[in-house]
Amino acid sequence: MTIPRIPVRQSSTANRDKMNSMVRLGVVGLGNMGSGHVAQMSKVQRCELTAVCDIDEAKLAKYPQFKQFGDSREMIRSGDIDAVLIAVPHYDHTTIAIDAFENGVHVLTEKPVAVHKADAQRMIDAHAKTNLVFGAMFNQRTDPHYQEIRRVVRSGELGEIQRTNWIITNWFRTATYYASGGWRATWRGEGGGVLLNQCPHNLDLFQWICGMPSRVRAYCGWGKYHDIEVEDEVTAYLEYPNGATGVFVTTTGEAPGTNRLEIVGDRGKLVYEDGKILFTRTNQSVREVLETSPESFASVPTSVTEIEVDGYGGQHVEMVQNFVDAILDGKPLLAPAPEGIHSVELANAMLFSAWTDRTIDIPLDAAAYEAALKEHIATSRYEKKAVVAAEVDLSKSWA
Amino acid sequence: MTIPRIPVRQSSTANRDKMNSMVRLGVVGLGNMGSGHVAQMSKVQRCELTAVCDIDEAKLAKYPQFKQFGDSREMIRSGDIDAVLIAVPHYDHTTIAIDAFENGVHVLTEKPVAVHKADAQRMIDAHAKTNLVFGAMFNQRTDPHYQEIRRVVRSGELGEIQRTNWIITNWFRTATYYASGGWRATWRGEGGGVLLNQCPHNLDLFQWICGMPSRVRAYCGWGKYHDIEVEDEVTAYLEYPNGATGVFVTTTGEAPGTNRLEIVGDRGKLVYEDGKILFTRTNQSVREVLETSPESFASVPTSVTEIEVDGYGGQHVEMVQNFVDAILDGKPLLAPAPEGIHSVELANAMLFSAWTDRTIDIPLDAAAYEAALKEHIATSRYEKKAVVAAEVDLSKSWA
Repeated sequence: MTIPRIPVRQSSTANRDKMNSMVRLGVVGLGNMGSGHVAQMSKVQRCELTAVCDIDEAKLAKYPQFKQFGDSREMIRSGDIDAVLIAVPHYDHTTIAIDAFENGVHVLTEKPVAVHKADAQRMIDAHAKTNLVFGAMFNQRTDPHYQEIRRVVRSGELGEIQRTNWIITNWFRTATYYASGGWRATWRGEGGGVLLNQCPHNLDLFQWICGMPSRVRAYCGWGKYHDIEVEDEVTAYLEYPNGATGVFVTTTGEAPGTNRLEIVGDRGKLVYEDGKILFTRTNQSVREVLETSPESFASVPTSVTEIEVDGYGGQHVEMVQNFVDAILDGKPLLAPAPEGIHSVELANAMLFSAWTDRTIDIPLDAAAYEAALKEHIATSRYEKKAVVAAEVDLSKSWA
Repeated sequence: MTIPRIPVRQSSTANRDKMNSMVRLGVVGLGNMGSGHVAQMSKVQRCELTAVCDIDEAKLAKYPQFKQFGDSREMIRSGDIDAVLIAVPHYDHTTIAIDAFENGVHVLTEKPVAVHKADAQRMIDAHAKTNLVFGAMFNQRTDPHYQEIRRVVRSGELGEIQRTNWIITNWFRTATYYASGGWRATWRGEGGGVLLNQCPHNLDLFQWICGMPSRVRAYCGWGKYHDIEVEDEVTAYLEYPNGATGVFVTTTGEAPGTNRLEIVGDRGKLVYEDGKILFTRTNQSVREVLETSPESFASVPTSVTEIEVDGYGGQHVEMVQNFVDAILDGKPLLAPAPEGIHSVELANAMLFSAWTDRTIDIPLDAAAYEAALKEHIATSRYEKKAVVAAEVDLSKSWA
């Protein structure tokens, strides 16, 4: 994947000295996520929030201390920012990121990186022509629980992976949530439901820890619990290149919901649930016992250890800091955005599987998926009954 | 389903007085299960083990205290038994049970009731013409954990079911196990693998607790971990008549394995794992919160209780006792064998789905499945490399 390099600002040489010690950041999109980022920005070292951008003047008016833009293209070309944090609805991640790259501006994008694989590839291609930093807001990668699980899996301590199972159903959302924003939970506005909005984190972590599957079969509930046209429940079967199998289950219609990740390998199993990581180690290779034991009903002795970690990581602030450090010091990104194509591809493959009622091979045919998505947009008969302006409203932000 | 009735012995009037106070039982099949049953039979009240039957004389020779038969038809017609416990390889359950019914002998059959749905239906039809007792050895129904889970689900305490998930992978079996018996883990000899041999219990409990799904989609690993032609790994997606979804995962290739049953309803979730039942109750209907909350990110307050039970039930002994009490007193059966058709149908539907690469509707087309199974038998090119005589050998018993 992308190896972060010391950036060379290409379109402007202004403020070069300042830039070496400080990143001037603009935030585009002042909805739920964007305003949250703005509120925390003072915690990030060597980062100066200089500009904000939104199409909604009322949102802009809350930030008189920053330069204000109603159009991201103007902010990107203003010379006031070295980097942009993109927090607009998903489809616009692509256009804004490409515009930034073409104008020498570093990009940190909210998840999902893009709505579909072809768009993600367009961003990656535009980025590849630059030396700019391109990060993705996969803040859950800062959580030491997932870091430890990844370490155990990637180090080989768990042995070769046999089976994965992630039940991640603690994404409960109300009817009010879906009513907030005409773009939300539509093919045209968001390009999907729980897979595109809530699960990018989980899909990213899943592939970050276990690698990408080679086949996916999914069943989706379309507006099963909510009055929406997109998926609010997914059950997916996964097959990995080594033959391992997996299951991924998610929904926004369940409470309190479950977050349980189980990974089984030849040397035991790892279960993460209720904030606790339990590692059940076998004292020898399971395959070896299976193949060589003279007993029919052999058991494999195990020991259980809890892998204890402290807290849940620096989350968004740590991600922005990491992005700033990558720009100023060439520090490796915790979540290079080109890796974000994987979670997009997984979400796309699951939807494509459910639409076509068949198993989808990965790599996914990006053009075929884009065409299918556009067909869903074109033939959509869904109309939102009412759009409620809630405090977490993103409806007027880059709709 | 079948309501147990006071039996009327039809073919023989001998020993009627004795029969009113005592059941004379014959065991057919002295392999692993049958010999285990014989060893525990003295714990069953009002049951006299009078005869044993096996085609292997060496096995019979171990039981000089009982009448010995080399052919089940002779035992059934001998007048020495009122009831037969069938513990031979699966295909023969059907022929022996029907023979018993036609000769006025009560039947308690090991699981699975039959290899495929059509055979199970044949047994049910033969039984329907009699007033005999027909029980199935679903001994896990005696486990108070499953009884309590069923009670919570069936009582409505959990609310309408939304999602089920059973990971039951603690069925580890070695190569030695599969090498013990030429019939084992072949289409011809057993008609399946983990679904037909290990999982009948789980499939029975699953439907006993949650009801039958209306659609099934499964992926199977055929001899994935062992040198066998049948399935030793299964991942299945289920859909229930009310729209609830489910997952069932099993394998004999994993150690230590997992046994975790999660059932989610409108009033919370129930999780059974590591011998512990946790019931997380919501303080109101989740659907109601979803539909009426003014908040976008509402949480539903919950309380967690552990449902404590004592031990794991009377298992096989309790099942035989229940069978005897049903014969003598008309006591309801804990596991009427006609209900066993459900677990057979589930196993068949999963295999049929994997064979045909499609989603299978339930009720399953029994004739189509039988034809497909026969096709697998006819075209099998599998040959066992070596048959090892292990202590738990069933190979010579009704092969």
